[in-house]
Amino acid sequence: MTQISADSSVLTFINVFTVKPENQERLVELLTSATNVSVRYATGFISSSLHRSTDGTKVTMYAQWRSLEDYQAMRDDPKPLPYFQEALTIATFEPGMYKVVKTFEPVKE
Amino acid sequence: MTQISADSSVLTFINVFTVKPENQERLVELLTSATNVSVRYATGFISSSLHRSTDGTKVTMYAQWRSLEDYQAMRDDPKPLPYFQEALTIATFEPGMYKVVKTFEPVKE
Repeated sequence: MTQISADSSVLTFINVFTVKPENQERLVELLTSATNVSVRYATGFISSSLHRSTDGTKVTMYAQWRSLEDYQAMRDDPKPLPYFQEALTIATFEPGMYKVVKTFEPVKE
Repeated sequence: MTQISADSSVLTFINVFTVKPENQERLVELLTSATNVSVRYATGFISSSLHRSTDGTKVTMYAQWRSLEDYQAMRDDPKPLPYFQEALTIATFEPGMYKVVKTFEPVKE
């Protein structure tokens, strides 16, 4: 389970991949494999959650890291490269690095 | 706190706003106001988390809803419209509606 809180010092990466619907499942497999062979073993990796859009055209990874240095060190690992490279033959991606500003809960009336 | 889990039936909206860095703070204020006057009172709203990119060019709202019908009913509420309308004068936005495929935890070696 991933927990989002404005109180934590984590760095959040929200990477949005755009894909043809017929390739969405393959993209999910590739990002899952990259995470399982490499990312989950990386120092400073806290949690990630993979999302598929209901219209089939997007896959978004929401990932939490302890620091930018830890994230960059993972990017130097060659093990996930074949998965990322195949992913980029079927998808484009828009990366984003964030801090959480605030979380909102329902108002109980 | 927002919790992400593949086991839940929630519908997730990840809306990425692109903005000039000098307008990022104002956009955060507008989305906060829209959430506080309307979204938090809506039936079926579970949680949302607002993120600002460290480079100043993006603001991303990660929001969980019980159903599409609940989300659409909120969109018919006129109260947050002034905030959304001002937001769209300083930002573009790319909406996305998702299901969580999987969450990943670190492997403890």
